Amino acid sequence: MQFDLSRRLVAEVLGTALLVATVVGSGIMADRLSDDVAVSLLGNTLPTGAILLVLITCLGPVSGAHFNPAVSLVFALRGDLKAADAVFYTLAQVVGGCVGAIVAHAMFALPLVELSSTVRTGLPQWIAEVVATFGLVFTILFGLRFRADAIPALVGLYITAAYWFTASTSFANPAVAIARSLTDTFSGIRPLDLPGFILAEVAGALLALAFASWFLGGRAKA
Amino acid sequence: MQFDLSRRLVAEVLGTALLVATVVGSGIMADRLSDDVAVSLLGNTLPTGAILLVLITCLGPVSGAHFNPAVSLVFALRGDLKAADAVFYTLAQVVGGCVGAIVAHAMFALPLVELSSTVRTGLPQWIAEVVATFGLVFTILFGLRFRADAIPALVGLYITAAYWFTASTSFANPAVAIARSLTDTFSGIRPLDLPGFILAEVAGALLALAFASWFLGGRAKA
Amino acid sequence: MQFDLSRRLVAEVLGTALLVATVVGSGIMADRLSDDVAVSLLGNTLPTGAILLVLITCLGPVSGAHFNPAVSLVFALRGDLKAADAVFYTLAQVVGGCVGAIVAHAMFALPLVELSSTVRTGLPQWIAEVVATFGLVFTILFGLRFRADAIPALVGLYITAAYWFTASTSFANPAVAIARSLTDTFSGIRPLDLPGFILAEVAGALLALAFASWFLGGRAKA
Amino acid sequence: MQFDLSRRLVAEVLGTALLVATVVGSGIMADRLSDDVAVSLLGNTLPTGAILLVLITCLGPVSGAHFNPAVSLVFALRGDLKAADAVFYTLAQVVGGCVGAIVAHAMFALPLVELSSTVRTGLPQWIAEVVATFGLVFTILFGLRFRADAIPALVGLYITAAYWFTASTSFANPAVAIARSLTDTFSGIRPLDLPGFILAEVAGALLALAFASWFLGGRAKA
Repeated sequence: MQFDLSRRLVAEVLGTALLVATVVGSGIMADRLSDDVAVSLLGNTLPTGAILLVLITCLGPVSGAHFNPAVSLVFALRGDLKAADAVFYTLAQVVGGCVGAIVAHAMFALPLVELSSTVRTGLPQWIAEVVATFGLVFTILFGLRFRADAIPALVGLYITAAYWFTASTSFANPAVAIARSLTDTFSGIRPLDLPGFILAEVAGALLALAFASWFLGGRAKA
Repeated sequence: MQFDLSRRLVAEVLGTALLVATVVGSGIMADRLSDDVAVSLLGNTLPTGAILLVLITCLGPVSGAHFNPAVSLVFALRGDLKAADAVFYTLAQVVGGCVGAIVAHAMFALPLVELSSTVRTGLPQWIAEVVATFGLVFTILFGLRFRADAIPALVGLYITAAYWFTASTSFANPAVAIARSLTDTFSGIRPLDLPGFILAEVAGALLALAFASWFLGGRAKA
Repeated sequence: MQFDLSRRLVAEVLGTALLVATVVGSGIMADRLSDDVAVSLLGNTLPTGAILLVLITCLGPVSGAHFNPAVSLVFALRGDLKAADAVFYTLAQVVGGCVGAIVAHAMFALPLVELSSTVRTGLPQWIAEVVATFGLVFTILFGLRFRADAIPALVGLYITAAYWFTASTSFANPAVAIARSLTDTFSGIRPLDLPGFILAEVAGALLALAFASWFLGGRAKA
Repeated sequence: MQFDLSRRLVAEVLGTALLVATVVGSGIMADRLSDDVAVSLLGNTLPTGAILLVLITCLGPVSGAHFNPAVSLVFALRGDLKAADAVFYTLAQVVGGCVGAIVAHAMFALPLVELSSTVRTGLPQWIAEVVATFGLVFTILFGLRFRADAIPALVGLYITAAYWFTASTSFANPAVAIARSLTDTFSGIRPLDLPGFILAEVAGALLALAFASWFLGGRAKA
């Protein structure tokens, strides 16, 4: 089934918006309700994993449900997405992410746009983002190869795990990272720290693409 | 498979009753056991998401498992449910919801009916309910289109997320909202605040219907 | 596929033992680690729901994976299980449950058998057990009718919900209740309170059987 | 589909590394964020269960996704894995596990290798490891027999339960145990205590193999 480009872009905007609204909104809710940061992170993790399964199931058949420029880049490099479309996808994802942060703020009676003051930088954080995005793209590429129908659950569960096992709580997504720089709440990231995160995410995604191409390529299918 | 109207209405009464018994009962249990409100919300969220998957699986083949007048309205406007049946469904859902609240109170040794004193009003809360119900109906309509067999999981997981990412904890259901006005516990809502919630929920549902009709309509199926 | 009676009984012993070891063991672990009772109940709920899905998937094809005399009674009354076998099943379930409690105690360095001193009695608790068991048998019978392959998930998720929305934390199982009288820990029940729970559980099961027989019987299949 | 041995070993290295990175990393994260040990254990359990489902789905078709010498031993004894391959698998799993611990430390800004000082010894702990590994291998062998496509979910959910119902938090895996001796954090185990755990794990695995061979063997299939 094929949808026209405009609908695919709308799907990327809407999906990324709902994803970021969930990440930011549940972060605000959880942080307000608890003094225990691990409880807050649980209240941030479960909604994010759940909404990913929902959104990828509902919008995957339309646009592929990337919601993530690093993922669109990978599919463009694989030849599954036209280069021009990948650019449009990226723009749609960034716009959608920012809309999602604004909607979350509107629901929680905050100024619609803030700049985050949460410091997230340094080598360990960047290693964490490389690992987080490597794992995400690995999950997508191997999942597509062996159990494509399970991709929504696989991505939702991978992110559920990665919130906890990576020191950065696994942003793993440049568009979501940009959107999260616009909220000075639980899930925010200082704008100054964006370049480090985005570079690490792209590096992790490319590593996973290289690994999967070698692993699943020609001879592996014998 | 077709069930007669009386059985379909019994299914809506029973399903909405068990849903509200779960929402109200788990709210009482969680609130009694913890001083950390986020922990209580976790103890309210997980049972609600779980029971939705169960109830929609078990009763969906009978009545569609709406348990929600906003959903029945959407299906009536789509022509999938007779207008008269939608009225009966709504009555059954409200009756079922109130029964569920009473059953929860009986189990927890509370007066069978109370009036809630929990204030839930104001623009941010209404925006939250618009978003919550938009997301719910979006999930149902896109889910039906692409993975109808996954609807029980999709709705359960969507509500799991929406409890946290919407500032209102996602009522998203006029019948459940009415029933929750009859409990002065964790999950209650002041009767005075019902009209604002119900209007917002209907608005969110209609927005999602309009969006899905455009998005998935005629040309999109090419 | 048919297994001989001895293997079916071994399956009921093993399954009920692992179920009770999980209920009792996770209750001890959770209670030791937290001062927040709702956190402890979460630590008791998630393992129970998870192990139910596992055990019913692995042993359902052998014995039906009842692990519960109230369920075996219902299947006997429906004519799906010989009366004599239902008696053997019940004995196997009680034996298995007691073994499970003993194993949990051995793992947690407690006396192998204790008598619980936890009071669980009174009308609200009994109503809760009626509701809990009604819901369990309703889930099984409607699940079998419409999505038999989903029964392990449905039962696991139903119990996940019922731990929280019923005031009794949903024992819903006479064999498990008896076994839980042998532990003076988080999940225990005073032996004196067993008859009230067991009667309520049988009543709930029979109510659900009557309801399902009417609802799904002859004319409903048209 | 057949993959060559080198790719199967790479899969075992990568899978075990990501598994241990999740166990150790989420343990560090959870322990840092909470003073409530049960909350920390929740923050350790959910990621572990989630990543197991992901990794077994993505790498099961390559190598079987054992990530566990006790499991490889069982498959070798069943004749499903060559003895020599089982030795290579075991080495790959130990190497992968150690890499995973190092990666977790790198992400959390800890010395890359530590020796754990967490005491885990004594009969109750050993009984717990026997039970934990018995249950794991039981789940795998019965799951393979009746619902092979559900193995990733079954193993993920079994471990989710076993973290809580066994007093040892269910290591159930000699390679992971060795790797966990290299971290002095939440999930560590003193190197001195490894032999007791590993012996108990092998015993539990062999017990489950013997049980399943009898139960599911020749006559049981009638």
